[in-house]
Amino acid sequence: MLRLSAHPSGRHFLQIPGPTNVPDRVLRAIDHATIDHRGPEFGELGKAVLAGMQKVMKTEGHVVIYPASGTGAWEAALVNALSDNDLVLMAETGHFATLWKNMAEHLGLRVEFLPGDWRRAADVEAIAARLRADRNREIKAVCVVHNETATGVTSDIQAVRDAIDRAGHPALLMVDTISSLGSIDYRHDEWGVDVTVAGSQKGLMLPPGLSFNAISAKALAASQKNTLRRSYWDWHAMIASNATGYFPYTPATNLLYGLHEALDMLFTEGLETVFERHKRHAEATRRAVRAWGLEILCADPERYSPSLTAVMMPEGHSADAFRKAVLEHFNMSLGQGLTKVKDKVFRIGHLGDINDLTVCGTLSGVEMGLQIAGVPHQTGGVQAALEYLTDVAEVRSRPLG
Amino acid sequence: MLRLSAHPSGRHFLQIPGPTNVPDRVLRAIDHATIDHRGPEFGELGKAVLAGMQKVMKTEGHVVIYPASGTGAWEAALVNALSDNDLVLMAETGHFATLWKNMAEHLGLRVEFLPGDWRRAADVEAIAARLRADRNREIKAVCVVHNETATGVTSDIQAVRDAIDRAGHPALLMVDTISSLGSIDYRHDEWGVDVTVAGSQKGLMLPPGLSFNAISAKALAASQKNTLRRSYWDWHAMIASNATGYFPYTPATNLLYGLHEALDMLFTEGLETVFERHKRHAEATRRAVRAWGLEILCADPERYSPSLTAVMMPEGHSADAFRKAVLEHFNMSLGQGLTKVKDKVFRIGHLGDINDLTVCGTLSGVEMGLQIAGVPHQTGGVQAALEYLTDVAEVRSRPLG
Amino acid sequence: MLRLSAHPSGRHFLQIPGPTNVPDRVLRAIDHATIDHRGPEFGELGKAVLAGMQKVMKTEGHVVIYPASGTGAWEAALVNALSDNDLVLMAETGHFATLWKNMAEHLGLRVEFLPGDWRRAADVEAIAARLRADRNREIKAVCVVHNETATGVTSDIQAVRDAIDRAGHPALLMVDTISSLGSIDYRHDEWGVDVTVAGSQKGLMLPPGLSFNAISAKALAASQKNTLRRSYWDWHAMIASNATGYFPYTPATNLLYGLHEALDMLFTEGLETVFERHKRHAEATRRAVRAWGLEILCADPERYSPSLTAVMMPEGHSADAFRKAVLEHFNMSLGQGLTKVKDKVFRIGHLGDINDLTVCGTLSGVEMGLQIAGVPHQTGGVQAALEYLTDVAEVRSRPLG
Amino acid sequence: MLRLSAHPSGRHFLQIPGPTNVPDRVLRAIDHATIDHRGPEFGELGKAVLAGMQKVMKTEGHVVIYPASGTGAWEAALVNALSDNDLVLMAETGHFATLWKNMAEHLGLRVEFLPGDWRRAADVEAIAARLRADRNREIKAVCVVHNETATGVTSDIQAVRDAIDRAGHPALLMVDTISSLGSIDYRHDEWGVDVTVAGSQKGLMLPPGLSFNAISAKALAASQKNTLRRSYWDWHAMIASNATGYFPYTPATNLLYGLHEALDMLFTEGLETVFERHKRHAEATRRAVRAWGLEILCADPERYSPSLTAVMMPEGHSADAFRKAVLEHFNMSLGQGLTKVKDKVFRIGHLGDINDLTVCGTLSGVEMGLQIAGVPHQTGGVQAALEYLTDVAEVRSRPLG
Repeated sequence: MLRLSAHPSGRHFLQIPGPTNVPDRVLRAIDHATIDHRGPEFGELGKAVLAGMQKVMKTEGHVVIYPASGTGAWEAALVNALSDNDLVLMAETGHFATLWKNMAEHLGLRVEFLPGDWRRAADVEAIAARLRADRNREIKAVCVVHNETATGVTSDIQAVRDAIDRAGHPALLMVDTISSLGSIDYRHDEWGVDVTVAGSQKGLMLPPGLSFNAISAKALAASQKNTLRRSYWDWHAMIASNATGYFPYTPATNLLYGLHEALDMLFTEGLETVFERHKRHAEATRRAVRAWGLEILCADPERYSPSLTAVMMPEGHSADAFRKAVLEHFNMSLGQGLTKVKDKVFRIGHLGDINDLTVCGTLSGVEMGLQIAGVPHQTGGVQAALEYLTDVAEVRSRPLG
Repeated sequence: MLRLSAHPSGRHFLQIPGPTNVPDRVLRAIDHATIDHRGPEFGELGKAVLAGMQKVMKTEGHVVIYPASGTGAWEAALVNALSDNDLVLMAETGHFATLWKNMAEHLGLRVEFLPGDWRRAADVEAIAARLRADRNREIKAVCVVHNETATGVTSDIQAVRDAIDRAGHPALLMVDTISSLGSIDYRHDEWGVDVTVAGSQKGLMLPPGLSFNAISAKALAASQKNTLRRSYWDWHAMIASNATGYFPYTPATNLLYGLHEALDMLFTEGLETVFERHKRHAEATRRAVRAWGLEILCADPERYSPSLTAVMMPEGHSADAFRKAVLEHFNMSLGQGLTKVKDKVFRIGHLGDINDLTVCGTLSGVEMGLQIAGVPHQTGGVQAALEYLTDVAEVRSRPLG
Repeated sequence: MLRLSAHPSGRHFLQIPGPTNVPDRVLRAIDHATIDHRGPEFGELGKAVLAGMQKVMKTEGHVVIYPASGTGAWEAALVNALSDNDLVLMAETGHFATLWKNMAEHLGLRVEFLPGDWRRAADVEAIAARLRADRNREIKAVCVVHNETATGVTSDIQAVRDAIDRAGHPALLMVDTISSLGSIDYRHDEWGVDVTVAGSQKGLMLPPGLSFNAISAKALAASQKNTLRRSYWDWHAMIASNATGYFPYTPATNLLYGLHEALDMLFTEGLETVFERHKRHAEATRRAVRAWGLEILCADPERYSPSLTAVMMPEGHSADAFRKAVLEHFNMSLGQGLTKVKDKVFRIGHLGDINDLTVCGTLSGVEMGLQIAGVPHQTGGVQAALEYLTDVAEVRSRPLG
Repeated sequence: MLRLSAHPSGRHFLQIPGPTNVPDRVLRAIDHATIDHRGPEFGELGKAVLAGMQKVMKTEGHVVIYPASGTGAWEAALVNALSDNDLVLMAETGHFATLWKNMAEHLGLRVEFLPGDWRRAADVEAIAARLRADRNREIKAVCVVHNETATGVTSDIQAVRDAIDRAGHPALLMVDTISSLGSIDYRHDEWGVDVTVAGSQKGLMLPPGLSFNAISAKALAASQKNTLRRSYWDWHAMIASNATGYFPYTPATNLLYGLHEALDMLFTEGLETVFERHKRHAEATRRAVRAWGLEILCADPERYSPSLTAVMMPEGHSADAFRKAVLEHFNMSLGQGLTKVKDKVFRIGHLGDINDLTVCGTLSGVEMGLQIAGVPHQTGGVQAALEYLTDVAEVRSRPLG
């Protein structure tokens, strides 16, 4: 293994909003001999992980798995379902929504980007209004990020679907769940999503290198007559091979071992329990932030993210200098502010394979780092989190009835 | 780890021509905690593996690393350097050359496919003739597979370059080295290749999930004015980020750990020693095949592949039935015949992290399998290999001078 | 990981008669976080491995597990069941029987050592005669090595038991199964053994560091009134703690993870299948040895070891020089001749997690090494093994009835 | 890997005072193929770890490594250096001192056990007085536990040595450093210790299964004429083999890989830095305990343990019920009170591979657990620890001069 530098003692706290801390069980699963991806064992593995992904994505439709990181699954969604020069309606929730928008433009689509202030969810009313105004049905897809990783704001996917339906508009609904899937409740079929985009390195607790599309029948039909060029990302070749558990080209076999193990962990804990856990850690984090007297970037409490919390720095203080101090003193990585909020916010990831004590350690590192970096704040954030977590634990332990 | 079925005793012999047997050191390197791909440690890792890949590809130009399998690097080569409707000259060396051709067509290129019988190298004279005839310089690229994984035939890349140069033709030269890089001598710069395509799961001894492009200045220039749509595969965003060891989107961090380790192994053994080793094991394999009285698919001894040997089945016998018998009885995976040679050939992979005794075990499994499956043959193949390997070992051990 | 030297390519062939090649599944199991050996999870682990060991040793009596290598279990057997100055009857089957004898003397026992020529099993008639002559019942224990690792000769434990019984002698029967357990059929209860000694690093497919005693009720009773001093090895403290799955002092937790996994592998394959496999590989090895024109150390075909074969070097040739050549040229470790047969024999281990192709690779290395080292021999040993293994595979694949 | 039960999310906090959290680097090192313990690579490994252990133990004398847990090294110290019926002076510092005393008696030694209240260090004056009174020089050894794992009290080894010297007494000094070595400064040579006893699973950050003796020339001389029976533990056979890096019987090879890696980590961090880190975490823990209004078992602030803190429960409250609540609610293992203090204290391990945030997570779990379990306390313990750790970090980060 690479020894990049003298490593500090103890386990690193990887509290960026992904990649997340990969559980030992998953790492160890990945660390098995690569098998023949055309042999009989592989077919069983392929079928198992495809079925598991359907369960996580809550769909009975097709799920495809790419040997690629999440950005690839964004591209796959666009190039399969859309045609050159198609108009797409996207919502500016933050940095990642913007990157997806840029990608769409690079790929030859026209994008209307509903502006946002990076502190609120996708504006459902604005989407509804725009769709109603689109008499010619020029808009071919509405693209929304479920959980904007740059801001810690979730958008209401069901409400977007309702808006599309109320407008009687045929546009496809495409949703990025890269930092929500496996951490926040998500329902591809029930919410009427056409293409869901996901990645391995967040709630799925894997290293980066796998990404996913869940595909509705309508999206699949659209993909049969689109004109955007594609080969690696082509759904049809994937789906044809997947029927028997195989892939049209060499899959990332060892990461699939990890996926199999991670799915087993999620289902053993229970998806609903996993979602509750993420909500609890998010609330504990927010109570700490408030106790410090700092402001949460997400301006709408209804849309707080269960998987990360972006925190605004007091005016005149550098978020990056703070993060650097935390890394050097306390061996913890926090997420940086990106583009529009660069150096102005830092992000605390509280998703994936974590528990109450990891969260407490994380918040302790933030509280101590604020002091070290000379950021004005009040102490007591960790204390507030402890009180909340204790209350929840007491409630859980109380006998029923 | 998945327990797909009752596993037979002992180590599986993965003797397909890739994915190859991943060394324990590489698997264990991959099995380390994922780090922040935007943190300071990552930059050092990124720079180290990029520099190492230049060394393996023998180039001082840019190398890009994709979180994708080899098929992705094929696509990257085409979409970066070419424009919609461009004409490309490709050589039908076998199944993989054909897949690359199909991909080019899907991506909107016109392809002229120089026919081949799957038993010989790319026809350099035919390429030369076609280029000379191309007065209008309509051909934008010549694409050749260095080592056709489906047939065990290598093509002479230097000769193709010479043919292009002699014709004074400006076409780019693109070469697939997926099953040669790290196993067979290859020189991106010296041979004047414009785009080299490579993957992780063969001579580089990694699991699948990483792929590579080496890019000449000319190819890079071409990519600045091409019109094929691209985003994930875009060289420019990659190269810009790579300058400091980072990537424009989330890289497959843990596979990069493995790459770092695998490069260290290759350089410690010495690339020239690695190539000699592959030649030795290929020759041992061919001697066994001849002793069995079977025919090698490659009809030109000058172009025998050092990394795999495809063997023709006697008329009326099923290669797939034979392979199945070998898998069931001897826990060894051999490569299947693909498309045109389906069920007619089997392929013995002798590349990656192997040694003399692994090759002997492999050939033993083939010889016993031929008997079990009722394939007409003479015994003595393993014996012939032993004699050859012994001779080579004796020469090596003889004192110099 | 230690990089002791430039490592040769490919997997090392560890064909000494133990430690054996540890399967990846077992190594990966060991590579899990250490747990609290007084916590609730540990108790389940402890009970599971104790029950599994009873099954492997074919006993319903107590089995104790020491954090120690096999030598410790030898000591445990002696110090628990015997008293200072007790007389013990031991059979000189080879180097390890001699070491056990030396240990007994160091520990203050008197030993009568029935002489042997290291080519034959323990002499049951001599044991019987000696016991009959022991009118005063001075002999307190008969100690026999089931499979003498230094010679590749097995002794007939059931026959020894019968001899003791026929003599009506109360001596305890103690048996070393270090290189037989998990490779050769062994039945602690049915054969009336009082103390069985075993280790982790042979047929149990673990790294060294665990060792075992199976204990009859009679041995346990004897241990209550013996006078040899003991603490670490004391059975009673162990058995008392083991009742709930715990240990009286810190156990080697991670090796116990490996034991749990290895037991699962053995039971999945089936103990009888495992024993058949070892017999097959031993026969294949012996056929090779005979074809080379070399002599097997074991002079009695009835007592050939299924787990290793010791081979005699032709007069005037050094076994150690031969082994050195094999290691340097072919990356394979063979067992050395020990004390009386130092440099005169080499030993081929064919036990643990191996299969037909590993055996073929092993024999190939021996055959090539004989040539390289200039040892007079005939070629054809590997060929003979191939023919035998093919025949067996054909029989296995034939439909029944 | 064993799935003993549905595993809770996130990493377990193993905050018992050993086994400690094994770093990934060490686990991965252990997870390498077992090598021939008589081959050339092994000799290099053996020499490297023996030299490293001398450095950790601060001795230029012999260190021996047993494939055994720490209890074995206790036995080794006694049986090598002492004779049957010898009189030994031991100090009752707590449970582990008592276990060692019991062992000495089982092994046939006479023990004088200087009484202690389990809250203070070994009484140097009492030792001195007893030695002075021993006119006949009947006492052959003084045995002291450097860091009593049951109580969190350290004893002053140098002062004990001085006491022996001042009395002009020839008794050997034997010291148990099982929970101090690698965490607390320890100097075998400088402090004139004759036999040091150590284990792998605490400050050395390994799983249990290795233990150690460092041996003075005087102890070695004594061992040549002692009469206690020994074989497995015999120093002389060990030292003779160790000269070339080998062992007289099969060593625990894979744990030695881990030891090599762990030593590299300790030396890279620097032993003095490691000791400072442990002191810091101990002080942070004690500040938390005081803030909770609980009492530290160690009654003498001069002798506080840097590696663990034992905390007294308020009268009428069960430490074990508290620990159970912590385990169930917060996935953290704490150490139990043993024998005399059973259910009356709990122990917080803060040794091995930990850092500030791990300590904060640990203390958070304790504070929340006190609340959940209804243990009377004040909040603010974590807060107090945060303040202390912040202060220390600020001092460290201040520019020098």
